[in-house]
Amino acid sequence: MALIVQKYGGTSVGSTERIKNVAKRVAKWKAAGYDMVVVVSAMSGETNRLIALAKEIQPHPDPRELDVVAATGEQVTIGLLAMALMELGLKARSYTGSQVRVLTDHAYNKARILEIDESNIRRDLKDGYVAVVAGFQGVDRDGNVTTLGRGGSDTSGVAFAAALKADECQIYTDVDGVYTTDPRIVPEAQRLKTITFEEMLEMASLGSKVLQIRSVEFAGKYKVRLRVLSSLTPPELPIAEEAVSGTLITFEEDADMEQALVSGVAFNRDEAKVTVVGVPDTPGIAYQILDPIAEANIEVDVIVQNIGRDGLTDFSFTTHRNDLKKTLDILERVRKHVGAREVIGDDKICKVGLVGVGMRSHVGVASKMFRALAEEGINIQMISTSEIKITVVIDEKYMELAVRVLHKTFDLDQPR
Amino acid sequence: MALIVQKYGGTSVGSTERIKNVAKRVAKWKAAGYDMVVVVSAMSGETNRLIALAKEIQPHPDPRELDVVAATGEQVTIGLLAMALMELGLKARSYTGSQVRVLTDHAYNKARILEIDESNIRRDLKDGYVAVVAGFQGVDRDGNVTTLGRGGSDTSGVAFAAALKADECQIYTDVDGVYTTDPRIVPEAQRLKTITFEEMLEMASLGSKVLQIRSVEFAGKYKVRLRVLSSLTPPELPIAEEAVSGTLITFEEDADMEQALVSGVAFNRDEAKVTVVGVPDTPGIAYQILDPIAEANIEVDVIVQNIGRDGLTDFSFTTHRNDLKKTLDILERVRKHVGAREVIGDDKICKVGLVGVGMRSHVGVASKMFRALAEEGINIQMISTSEIKITVVIDEKYMELAVRVLHKTFDLDQPR
Repeated sequence: MALIVQKYGGTSVGSTERIKNVAKRVAKWKAAGYDMVVVVSAMSGETNRLIALAKEIQPHPDPRELDVVAATGEQVTIGLLAMALMELGLKARSYTGSQVRVLTDHAYNKARILEIDESNIRRDLKDGYVAVVAGFQGVDRDGNVTTLGRGGSDTSGVAFAAALKADECQIYTDVDGVYTTDPRIVPEAQRLKTITFEEMLEMASLGSKVLQIRSVEFAGKYKVRLRVLSSLTPPELPIAEEAVSGTLITFEEDADMEQALVSGVAFNRDEAKVTVVGVPDTPGIAYQILDPIAEANIEVDVIVQNIGRDGLTDFSFTTHRNDLKKTLDILERVRKHVGAREVIGDDKICKVGLVGVGMRSHVGVASKMFRALAEEGINIQMISTSEIKITVVIDEKYMELAVRVLHKTFDLDQPR
Repeated sequence: MALIVQKYGGTSVGSTERIKNVAKRVAKWKAAGYDMVVVVSAMSGETNRLIALAKEIQPHPDPRELDVVAATGEQVTIGLLAMALMELGLKARSYTGSQVRVLTDHAYNKARILEIDESNIRRDLKDGYVAVVAGFQGVDRDGNVTTLGRGGSDTSGVAFAAALKADECQIYTDVDGVYTTDPRIVPEAQRLKTITFEEMLEMASLGSKVLQIRSVEFAGKYKVRLRVLSSLTPPELPIAEEAVSGTLITFEEDADMEQALVSGVAFNRDEAKVTVVGVPDTPGIAYQILDPIAEANIEVDVIVQNIGRDGLTDFSFTTHRNDLKKTLDILERVRKHVGAREVIGDDKICKVGLVGVGMRSHVGVASKMFRALAEEGINIQMISTSEIKITVVIDEKYMELAVRVLHKTFDLDQPR
């Protein structure tokens, strides 16, 4: 019997009415013959309420005890959803992370899953039960409650699908899938019926926050077939329609049709650009610049260093705008140390990226992209490329224009 | 090192401010050199909120899932109290019922504790930690969450004290001890510095609801020294004063002084009286009357049957007023079956009882009691006695008068 793991976020279980709707949707899949495991988040607002209580007691709550408190949010939801399923005449049983058990490391508030013992759930499925599991939480080897950190229930969903070798992991959210770009910027943006894991990762890192990036990595690692679906469709939607709605995230090697050249246009304007000008072009210079940045826990994204001239080179990277001042302070010290000429910061930039596994074998994509931007008079400040992504850094005032132009240039506004 | 188990109810932990006060009180005892284990309830209102959510989903919530949901109430409190203790510079660690573990039977919503594994807590105490434990909950052999039912955290407190062989179990409530009678009826009522378990049981069953009766039974069974204390005193109260405040519940054999004849006057007006008149006085008749009542899950309290006359007898008992109609309906069928003359119900009655281990060897107590009531013109409808209790059923309009008269007659208004 085919097995499906469904994951519902906080908004989807935000009230007892919505929990009843989730039960209806699960019952529909069960009636269609699927074995069902359902992973749920805390009711929306609940985790924030619990954390606020903790902070009233301790401004910086003890990590172990914070997890004890926060984990109750999901525990309430699993009990309520199991009841709602029973009310519809189904057999259902709830599990906390410790009851499953979901073994994690000891990192409270941001634990990583080490192992899922699926034996209890297997037994339940065999007996015709729907298993309802608390996302976001686990237990360490010493029996302490742990949580996976914010948004971790996407990862829980995928982890259960991997452990149970589910046929599909369905993540229900308040959007109905992954789009070629943000429809708020390009109204013609099209929903992608499929996208590969690699593309999804590149889209996510550039700001298309449909799924937690960690859950996508996890799915890729364990080859979990992942589908993003809307929890806003009526629960009565015929299963044949729901089964193919949303966006399916596939493995590249699964692709049974010719890949589109480009799948989407991603963008991000949360970053700032930093350049160290006139750096002596000697071995180890990149390390000397970046190590103090990493030491300060500042995340760095695009890094570009071009070939040197006259024994000097320029070294650029982007970082989050909030970290710009801190970064410049650190680099000023570095500048003196390495004898560079100048450090320049610019927070009026944005990143725009083309993503697509199909571009791998098509060198023409880059030149077509650069020409399209040039025709609009958009100057490119930095370029960075990977196998399936081309990212440019441009003046932020051109962001919407660049996204629209690229979306049209690569025919992304055509129905797919 | 002396070990104390303290138990705080929902009102005592009803807000983060109150939780901080509990932490101060615990810290004071710890500073005085005691090893401390603290058992807590859910924040007041929280259990009701959770049950209401469950009932929105299922009018009669599934018992297993209801426990999953309800148990989160205490889990939040333990985390918050552990944080509050840390904020005061103490080492503290929280435990859910399953983490301890508190092994119970499988009876969801009203489970009974089978065994407490105290090894984790012992280790913590040895390392100087305050152990903060969720009351009201446990786990069955299959790892399912169970709850002990309403008010069960008093029982949890006593059970932990028993398992850990604590020197004392302190139950903090919103009253400061057990009184000779209800001070709302007799303003001169005196707080008892000590009371025996047997007396406490008799007081509780007659309506002095300071402690859950089950917790008192448990304490008696495992010889746990139990003290009821007020959580309304300032947490800064010197330990020497707090240590002897409230009421200590002792074992009869501990008594190192002459027992008072009478310890208190209990009363209850929630009951109704039922009499089956003119019952054939044959063997098995009591069974034939009471068995259908028990079958209907109706609880029966005082039962009186006097000697028969002319082959007939009258059979009376009391039951809760809410069950009177149901009881009369059942007895009407029984009446026809056994050939009794008549069934009479009366819900305008009350019970008043004298309690005291000292009365055991003093036959004069009963006659003194009956004379005092007679002098006030109070007619006694039923009398029932046990070793340490004399209960009378009288017209409810005389209740306050009877309580006041008996309280004075037995010198209970003298400071003790």
